[in-house]
Formats: sequence, structure tokens, C-alpha cells
Amino acid sequence: MKLKAGIMGATGMVGQRFIMALREHPWFELSCLMASSNSAGKKYKDAAKWYLKDEIPAGISDMVVEEINKKVAEKYDLDIVFSAIPSEFARDIEASFAESIGVFSNTSTYRMDKDIPLLVPEVNPEHLGIIEAQKKNRGWEGFIVTNPNCSTAGLVVPLKPIMDNYGIKSVNVTTMQAISGAGYDGVPSMAILDNLIPFIKGEEEKMETEPQKILGRLEKNEFKQASFEAFASCNRVMVLDGHTEAAFVYTEKDFDIEDVKKKLRDFQGEPQKMCLPTAPNPPIVLMEKDDRPQPRFDRDLGGGMAVSVGRLRKKKEKLLKFVCLSHNTIRGAAGASVLNAELAYKKKLIN
Amino acid sequence: MKLKAGIMGATGMVGQRFIMALREHPWFELSCLMASSNSAGKKYKDAAKWYLKDEIPAGISDMVVEEINKKVAEKYDLDIVFSAIPSEFARDIEASFAESIGVFSNTSTYRMDKDIPLLVPEVNPEHLGIIEAQKKNRGWEGFIVTNPNCSTAGLVVPLKPIMDNYGIKSVNVTTMQAISGAGYDGVPSMAILDNLIPFIKGEEEKMETEPQKILGRLEKNEFKQASFEAFASCNRVMVLDGHTEAAFVYTEKDFDIEDVKKKLRDFQGEPQKMCLPTAPNPPIVLMEKDDRPQPRFDRDLGGGMAVSVGRLRKKKEKLLKFVCLSHNTIRGAAGASVLNAELAYKKKLIN
Amino acid sequence: MKLKAGIMGATGMVGQRFIMALREHPWFELSCLMASSNSAGKKYKDAAKWYLKDEIPAGISDMVVEEINKKVAEKYDLDIVFSAIPSEFARDIEASFAESIGVFSNTSTYRMDKDIPLLVPEVNPEHLGIIEAQKKNRGWEGFIVTNPNCSTAGLVVPLKPIMDNYGIKSVNVTTMQAISGAGYDGVPSMAILDNLIPFIKGEEEKMETEPQKILGRLEKNEFKQASFEAFASCNRVMVLDGHTEAAFVYTEKDFDIEDVKKKLRDFQGEPQKMCLPTAPNPPIVLMEKDDRPQPRFDRDLGGGMAVSVGRLRKKKEKLLKFVCLSHNTIRGAAGASVLNAELAYKKKLIN
Amino acid sequence: MKLKAGIMGATGMVGQRFIMALREHPWFELSCLMASSNSAGKKYKDAAKWYLKDEIPAGISDMVVEEINKKVAEKYDLDIVFSAIPSEFARDIEASFAESIGVFSNTSTYRMDKDIPLLVPEVNPEHLGIIEAQKKNRGWEGFIVTNPNCSTAGLVVPLKPIMDNYGIKSVNVTTMQAISGAGYDGVPSMAILDNLIPFIKGEEEKMETEPQKILGRLEKNEFKQASFEAFASCNRVMVLDGHTEAAFVYTEKDFDIEDVKKKLRDFQGEPQKMCLPTAPNPPIVLMEKDDRPQPRFDRDLGGGMAVSVGRLRKKKEKLLKFVCLSHNTIRGAAGASVLNAELAYKKKLIN
Repeated sequence: MKLKAGIMGATGMVGQRFIMALREHPWFELSCLMASSNSAGKKYKDAAKWYLKDEIPAGISDMVVEEINKKVAEKYDLDIVFSAIPSEFARDIEASFAESIGVFSNTSTYRMDKDIPLLVPEVNPEHLGIIEAQKKNRGWEGFIVTNPNCSTAGLVVPLKPIMDNYGIKSVNVTTMQAISGAGYDGVPSMAILDNLIPFIKGEEEKMETEPQKILGRLEKNEFKQASFEAFASCNRVMVLDGHTEAAFVYTEKDFDIEDVKKKLRDFQGEPQKMCLPTAPNPPIVLMEKDDRPQPRFDRDLGGGMAVSVGRLRKKKEKLLKFVCLSHNTIRGAAGASVLNAELAYKKKLIN
Repeated sequence: MKLKAGIMGATGMVGQRFIMALREHPWFELSCLMASSNSAGKKYKDAAKWYLKDEIPAGISDMVVEEINKKVAEKYDLDIVFSAIPSEFARDIEASFAESIGVFSNTSTYRMDKDIPLLVPEVNPEHLGIIEAQKKNRGWEGFIVTNPNCSTAGLVVPLKPIMDNYGIKSVNVTTMQAISGAGYDGVPSMAILDNLIPFIKGEEEKMETEPQKILGRLEKNEFKQASFEAFASCNRVMVLDGHTEAAFVYTEKDFDIEDVKKKLRDFQGEPQKMCLPTAPNPPIVLMEKDDRPQPRFDRDLGGGMAVSVGRLRKKKEKLLKFVCLSHNTIRGAAGASVLNAELAYKKKLIN
Repeated sequence: MKLKAGIMGATGMVGQRFIMALREHPWFELSCLMASSNSAGKKYKDAAKWYLKDEIPAGISDMVVEEINKKVAEKYDLDIVFSAIPSEFARDIEASFAESIGVFSNTSTYRMDKDIPLLVPEVNPEHLGIIEAQKKNRGWEGFIVTNPNCSTAGLVVPLKPIMDNYGIKSVNVTTMQAISGAGYDGVPSMAILDNLIPFIKGEEEKMETEPQKILGRLEKNEFKQASFEAFASCNRVMVLDGHTEAAFVYTEKDFDIEDVKKKLRDFQGEPQKMCLPTAPNPPIVLMEKDDRPQPRFDRDLGGGMAVSVGRLRKKKEKLLKFVCLSHNTIRGAAGASVLNAELAYKKKLIN
Repeated sequence: MKLKAGIMGATGMVGQRFIMALREHPWFELSCLMASSNSAGKKYKDAAKWYLKDEIPAGISDMVVEEINKKVAEKYDLDIVFSAIPSEFARDIEASFAESIGVFSNTSTYRMDKDIPLLVPEVNPEHLGIIEAQKKNRGWEGFIVTNPNCSTAGLVVPLKPIMDNYGIKSVNVTTMQAISGAGYDGVPSMAILDNLIPFIKGEEEKMETEPQKILGRLEKNEFKQASFEAFASCNRVMVLDGHTEAAFVYTEKDFDIEDVKKKLRDFQGEPQKMCLPTAPNPPIVLMEKDDRPQPRFDRDLGGGMAVSVGRLRKKKEKLLKFVCLSHNTIRGAAGASVLNAELAYKKKLIN
């Protein structure tokens, strides 16, 4: 018996990735598609501007889109819901669902709340431990679990073994982010052809605060931020999918570069150990070729869930440089939420 | 009476920019175009794959290309020569010309030599003071002046007022470089469409060593490197012209961000004070709009010689972030050499 | 004394091109900028998303945008107005201005009306002869003159000397149109990167009917359509500016291909003979290189007003093939309207 | 027992597609990779600049590349060989292999020869009937079968049911071809960014002659060309893979447009009837959405072997317009050759 899952924001680009991630999922069954009132009542194929190359899965095309509303959870007897709704609506809507069921949200609204896990299963699976307190605090029978911003998601995976082995003092990161991160209509071709844009609203702020929560510890139901500083410069470039990030990491302890490579190559997280259905293995694909990773070639590794890391160099004592790449709408959005749900399910947080 | 100038490597992309920079120059007259034996003997219009939008200037089209050879200097009675030849040939060829005339070279070969100035007129005009020693050392009647790598050229201009006012401890820089930097055939469209490449051969090494020479002092005919460290991550993106660079600068003294802006905005170098013909004024265009500079819009400011600086932020005490942009084949190549020649001429180093 | 000109739709992409075309115009002075109520009351620089590389001309930046309304004509004592407003509003608005002044419209609304000239000064200058009848019919003191759709504009110029010399039976044309033709937000980068779109709403219909009116005769105040048939296939490609069109023209009489080249090369229209300020000369730039015209290199010829024609081939008896290119927002929009106004002024239709 | 197959030109882009098409093929086994002397002796992974997203198949990476030479056929006991070598070498090399085994060639050299089939299995499977005569004429034990140029390959499939049902008088076609058609280094990014190129060497000539052979009849060992005329205008656009073609077809008989749609939709060729392993079904994907086909979305339909057809319109009596799209390195190259080999095998031409 599979769990019944809904998607809020099902017509957008992340919503489409949710559909692909849940199609033929061994544990979850896609029972309900929700979107704004514009789309409600229409068949999915008529409501969505489908942008993926693979066609809309059979069985999804003709599903009628529901308007986002907590009553839908009852109507479809949902066990969980995935959320990719705009942050301005998320606070009330996600809470209303969390009163009764588990919400796995890609939206930024709750990410930094004191009792909400900002979860990356390879990095901080123990943060799910807050859920019980969260339910108590808020009087919910369900809960909310968030995943990080797309640019944070790719970075924290390689930071995890680096922090565990050498400690991190600070991180400077410059991103080159794909156009799909802004949504289908987000970046006009007039804006980006023969060009790049050194600004993405709110992005640097997220990258400078989320990693410390994710890489921090949960102690007595309190999140202790990791102590490093993060500084970001975020840019949009003309790439369809895949965020590339150049990171300079100042470590606490010195390191041998071959040792770092080994630590990254051998890294295994809970999802790999538990063999979660969408967990990539290895989670980090270490590349030694001078000119990799590259988005067009490497973004789909591990089904879009792997993080590719290359150009690893020791720049001086305690200064490590690398370039990492991850698929922004899979590892950085829908896939991240689904992996979170898989972990929560395996940890028996969903009944 | 204008000085007679030649161009070595006249058919390539930098060579074309030299032609445009010297067309109608008030002090220099383009007397001779030199290229490899493949092109020698042909009319320029037949030898060059002209890639600029403006047509080949009248008078240049039908000039017959000479093979690169020091005898050409005599034949045309050249006063100076500009060089954009591949680095593997440059050592002997540039030296042979320097025996008799001034060589302004865009090639990397001599840049780091002890008695060769690596000149950016706004930054280190006093480095020309080495020329006399250079001539003596080498037994030349002429001399060699080099300009930096295209990605260094854009960075050192804003670093100058920052160093002068606050000191610099270290710089981390990530570049997003235009395809023209690799030459006309350098980047296949198959390699870069819907993609970026996190590697440019030799580029990080140059960016990590050239700035310290340029921003260093000349003392008793010896270059004293500036003491800061520079670390670079260089990337190729699908932009025609214009290198964009995201820099994190750790300063010696703390700063007020508005004060930094003022220092950049008000910055004037020797070329501006001397009103050199191709000097941009202001040399630094400070941009306060969140999403600028952008290569398609800003690369041609100041005739391609200005450096645009935006996204200036104080990230924490003594940590400054900005994005700078400069035209890689003008400020970063041909235009740089021509400005060097103008300075040398004004300083009476060319007779 | 210059004529006072207004622009309706001044903030859009065609509006921006109008501003550039009228800046420093010898006969017209830009007195008033009009746009929708969203923009009204704002300074132009705040109202417009300026997309051109050249900066907003001094004197324009701070002009306050007026809401589109016929009272504006009086307030500013306008002599003429240029229109680039959406076709759904144009019928009433343009008519209201035409009651008192001359309207030069880039909008499609009135193009095919029986008493409205669809004017390309090189092709059918005599069509202005309808104006008197138009004023009488409609009881206007002013008038409306339209210019064709951007893809038609480039095609009819070379068709003119071909029709005059050999007659035309039919034309098949396939376009490859620039993204700027759809407006700044018209083509999302997600839609066009590594892609093309074989459809532009309404475009094929316009290309299949406008040429016959333009190349037709005006007889006794009636437009007699040219008798040829036109068939179009319109495509959007990832080019910033410049529509490229591959045309197959079936002629009435057979031709010698060198003779066709000569006729195109030597073609002169009224604007050239009258030396109208923005008339390109030659209006047709004939290219014999195998791989030209190309949009990035050739779209700006003649200030964006020339039509480049290349790949001229005789495919068989009475079948001519060529590729033509023109700048879609200059020759195909704003520049077309301005040239129309220049012709009307010279013909004393504007007092 | 699978047949042993070799690939000549295995390191190039078409060669890579051959490898993908033959990997896990039910009838053919990839036994030998051949390339120029530059690559000979190297492991495949070191010799090839692999450009596909899917990794080099296991088992291929470490195969040692052989220099192209007929002795290789014996050494590896090859049954067939696929050829993607430059046309200037093909005449002698392909003939030397054909002395003993079947050669399936993507190269243009032999396409128009009197006794060589230019085969598209959906269109002219009976042309394989020439093989016996070919062997006799040339004294070969093997034979040569060619497939058409990439732009022809996509066009002739929809032309087949059109010709069979309505007859064809003439075809005008304008192509918008992908950069991969020129090989990895064929189109510099400097040439095509924000641009298109209205010229591809030799392409229009091929498109104007190959269709008539393919759609012609084989009578008494003689190819009778189809009687229609074809005229082509070929353009390169910035698309990775997938040639889009806008065709105007003048038919002999008039047609009902819905009837044409049905004929295209229902079209089945020999490969479909025989269920050849790589035959797409349906071979023609008819699209009724206004804005399809589009290369990024539709090029991979049917494993890259289907031809998408859209924008079907009756322009006037006996004039049909459509846009077709096919994958240029699969249906237009390697996949075409493999399908040819499958047909030949099924027809017992390979022992």
C-alpha cells in the first residue's frame, strides 16, 4: 500500500519535476494535483505549460487540477503533500495542511523557523528529531519539513565531509545559475542572450544563512548553527538546468588534497546507507578532468540527485577551492523534497 | 608627424581590435600589418577572418600583409610595434624588434620578467621607469612593455584605489569569461551551448601572480610585489565579449562602504590626468543598480576601456565584495597595449 | 523650426527605437512621450525597461511620461505622433489623434483599410496620394499612415525592383525572426535556448497579404493589389535583432542572374533621391559572399534601415532564390515610421 | 549469434552515435572501432572527444582504436562495417571493404552512383534490389548501401505518403540546421552566438538531387528519378541537435488537408511492418499544436528516428506547407545506416 501524495503548485516547473519524481515511486502514489484558481478545474495537460522533454506521464495528463485548499487533503485522503508554492502564500497554506498531514516544502517561508528542519538527508538526517517538538509547539498532527534553496542544496553536500574532517572557518562562493531557477517566464531571452546577470533576488542572503543551519547540530530540540561564515555572489547565466558554483573554503585544520578527494569520493550519507529509492550513489561524483563538471553533461548524474565536484585544488594552507554542480530543479528542489519524504517515511514519521 | 606603428598578429581577433584602436589615432599611424607566413603576401581583407561588426577600415582592406620579421621594422621605418602573437613565438620575435624599437605586447611571454614592465597606466605608470635599465641589461635600443592577461586587466583597476585606501590582504575571484577570449575558433559552439566550462588553460595561474606585480612598487629598478594573495577560479560562459568577475577582497583596514564607492567613483589615474587619447574617463564606472554590470550592456563603456563595477557590498569587517566587468579584447588586450604606448609616448620614451 | 513629435507606446522596445531615431533629427523634435497608465506620471527612465546598449539620450531620461490621450496633442502642440501601441487599443486612439494631426503608426490595425496607406517609401511613395481622400472620408484634419509588419518590411524592398523588371507570379518565404520582435518579455529564455519555434501568432497571415497592397497601385484613390501570391512560414530563432528571410520568387519573365544583381544593387527609391534624413543609401546592400547576410554582422547596415540581400541564385527558369535580412525594430518598425514621416513632410502633407 | 560490426570514423560525432545505436543491438555486435592514424592505437576514451550526455558505454571505453584499413575486416572477422569517414577518403576505403563485406555508409561519395542504393527503409526498401547487380558490376563479394544527407533524411519520409497519394510537382524547402551537423569543431561559438548563417557548403545541392533518387523507382536495375523538382535554402542556427525544415510542396493532384493529416499519421513503412529493432513507430509523428515541432522537445521522439511534422496547411489548391524536424545525427546519420543494415539483414543480403 503506497502513501497518497499531493502536489501543491503542480503546474510550475518544480511541480513538473515533482510529477516526474513521483511517477512510479515505490512508496508514494500521486493522488492529487493542486494549483492556483486559474488552473483549478482544468485537466492537467491544459493547465500546465509542460516544459520537460519527457511527455506528461500517462495518467497525469487528464487529472483535474484542484485549487489549493486543506479540504483537498481530506477529499483525497492524502498522507503527505509536497509544496512548491510561492513564498508569499506558503505560511498559511502549508500550516493548514500541517495540521493534519506531513508537508514537504520547497518554499523558503519556514526554512529558518526554530522548530522546522531544513533537511538534506545526506547532511543532517538527525534534524528530523525536531518533528515531535514541532508538532507539540504548534498543535499539529502533521508537520513541515523544508529543503534548502537550489543553490544551497548543491553546496552543502560536499561541505559536509569537508567540515567533518577538517572543520570550516568560512566559505566564499560564486554561483552561475541556470535560467530554469527563475521559472518558465522568469528570464526573458532578451535579458540573457549574449549576457549574464550578476543578481538574483534574495539568493545571496539564502546562501549566506541556510548552510549554517543545515550543517549545524540539533541539541535538545534546538538548532545550533555551524560556526562558519558564508559569503555569496550569485549570477544568472544562459544554461537551461544546473547550477554551477565556485567555492573557496577556509578550513580549520590543514589538509592533504588527495585526502580531501578520497573523503569526497567515499562519502556516504543516510540515504545511501538506507538505500532510499531516489538516493544517488555516490552522492558526490568527484571529477578529476580539468574541465569538469559542466552543466550540459553532468547535471543529470544520479538522476539529477548527484552533486558533481571538480577542480579541487589546495590554494594554500587551509584554503580549498572547488567547483560543484547540481541540478537545480531536481537536487535543488523537487528531488530534494522527495528524498526528504523518503527519509521521513523510513524513520516512521509518516504513518 | 605621427609615429609609424606596426601590428604583429594583425589577422587575429586582438589584431583586429588593434586596427580599430589605431584607426584615426592622433599620434600613431598604422603603417604595417604583420602575420604568419600563411597570410603574408595577401591583402588584409583576404587574409583575415574579420569578426567585428564595423567593417575593415578603408585603407586597411587592401594593405598587403607582411610576414613577421624584424626587417619589416626597417622597411617601413617603424617607430613602434604592437604584438598579439602566440606566446610560443614571442620570446625571440619580440626581442628582435626590441633591439631597435619599442614593442607593446599583449603576449604573456615577457610579463613576469624582472626588467619588463607589466603596465596598466591607471595603476602603475611609474613602472615605466624600468625601461632604461631594461635597455641597458639587454643591450637594446628599443624596449618591451607588456599588458596583463585579459582577466587581470579588469580586476586591477578597481583594486588600485582599494589597496591605496584600505590595503589588501587577499583576493578571491571567480571569472565568467567571454568566448572571444579564446580566439575565433577557440570555443566550438558544441562545447558551450546550454553549458559553461569551469576551466581556461593557464588563466588561474596568471590571475594569481600578475596582480601582485602590477600593484607592486618599483624600487631601485626592482619590482617589489604587492604582498596580498590572489586566488582565482576561471570559467568560460556563452557571452561574446566582456569578462565578468566576482571578487571578494579582504582588506587590511576596515572601511565604510559609501566611502569605498566614493573612492572608486572619483578614481583618476595618469591617463585621465594626462588626457591620453584612448583613456576612458572615468576609468571606473560605478553602478548602483542591483543587476549591473552586465556584459551586453556595459562592455563598451568608455570605448571598451572603462571597467564597470557593481554589487559593491560590505560582507563583514574588512571583507568587500564586488562584480567588475571589462571588455576582454579592448581593455583586456589591444586597447591596453595602445594606452601603454600613449603613456610611453607622453613620457618621451619613444623618440 | 522643427515639427513637434510625440510617441505613443514610448516605453516598449519599438518606442525606444523611436526615441533613438528622433534624437537629433533635423526636422522633428521629440516633445512628448506617452504610454499606458502604469507609466504615466513617472520619469521616462523609471517607467521604461531600457534595453538598448546606447544609454537613454540626455533630455529624455527625465521627461515625464503622459498617459495616452488625444488631449496630449493639444497640450504639447504636437504636429505629428508616432504610434507603437498594441493593436487592440489602436483603432480608437489613433483615430482620435488623426482628427487633428498626422499619425505614423507601426500598429497593424489600420494597415489593410481601404483609405490608409501601407507605406514603404522606397516601394510605394505614391500611395501617400490617398491621404486627401482619407481625410475627406473620415472627416479628419490629420491622417494615418501605417508601415508594414517587421517581416514584410524587409521583403518588399528587394521585391520592388524584381517586380518592376521581371514581374512576380508568386513568392514563398520562410522567416527566421529575432526575439526582439516579440517584445522584451515576449520570448522566455526557457522557450528558445537550444531551440526554435516554428510559429508566430498572426505573422504568416500578415506576410501573405501586406506585400500585395504595398506593391500594388493606387488608382483613382483605390488600392489595386499586386496580383502575385505570397506564402509564408514564420519561425522564431535565438537572435537578438534582425529578421532573416529565405525567399523563392517565381517571376513572370525569365531573368539573367547578373542582371538581377545589377538591378538590386542599383535600386534607388524616392527616399534616396530626396535624400531623406534617415534613408539608407543604398537601400539594398547586395552581398556576394556565400555566407552573408548574417544578422549579427549586417543588421545595422544603413543605420538599421538597409536591407541586405545575399545568396541570390537562379534555381531554374523564372525561379529566383535569395536571403534577405533587415533590422526588425528599425527598418521593420520605428525607423519605417520615421522614414514615412520624412516622406510625408517632404511632400508637404504635414503643415 | 550476432553479426560482427565495425565502425569507420568511430571517434567523430556520427561515430559516437553509431556506438550508441549498436550498444545492446539484438542483431549486431560492435567488434571493432576504426579511425584515422591519429587515434589508432589509443584507447577509445582517450582518442574520442566524447560529446554525448550518456557516458561511453562500458566495454567501449577501453577498446583500442584501429587505423582504417581493409585488413581490419579480416582481423576481426567483420560481417558488416558502418562508415562515417570524410568524403574525400571514402571512395577507395569503402570500396576496399566492399570487396568482402557489406558497407553501410553515411558518407556522400557513393550516394548518387548508378548501382548504389541511397536507402531510407520507410521510403524505398525495394532499392536494395540493386545489390546483386552492384556486386556483379564491381566484382565485389560485399556491397555498399548509403543513406542520405541529414537534411534530406528528414524530408523524404513525409514526402513519401504525399507523393504516393497526391503526386509531387515540386518542393521548396528552407532548413534551419543544428550545429552538430558540422561536427564538433565545425561551428565556432563566435560564428553563431546571436546569429545564424545562411549557408552550408554543398548542402543545397544534396537536398536538390537526393530526394528524386530516393523517391524514384528501381526498374530493371536502373534508378528512375522521381520527376519533381526540389529547391533548397540551407541555414545554420544555434540549436544543438535537430534539423527543422519548412517545406512548400506543390502536388499533382489537389488534396483535402484532413486527408493529408490522416495519410501522414497512418503511414507505415517496411521497417514498421517488419518490426526492425530501431524502427520508430509511428515513423511520422503528426503534431497539431500551432507551435510544434520544436527541436529541443521533439528531436528525440522514436529514439531520434521519428520525423515530427507540424504546421500542416493547405496554402492554396495543390500547395501544401509543413514543417518537419528530425534528429540530424540519428535519423540523419548513424541511425539511418543502422536501420539500413537491419533491413538488409532481414532481406538476407548479409550472410
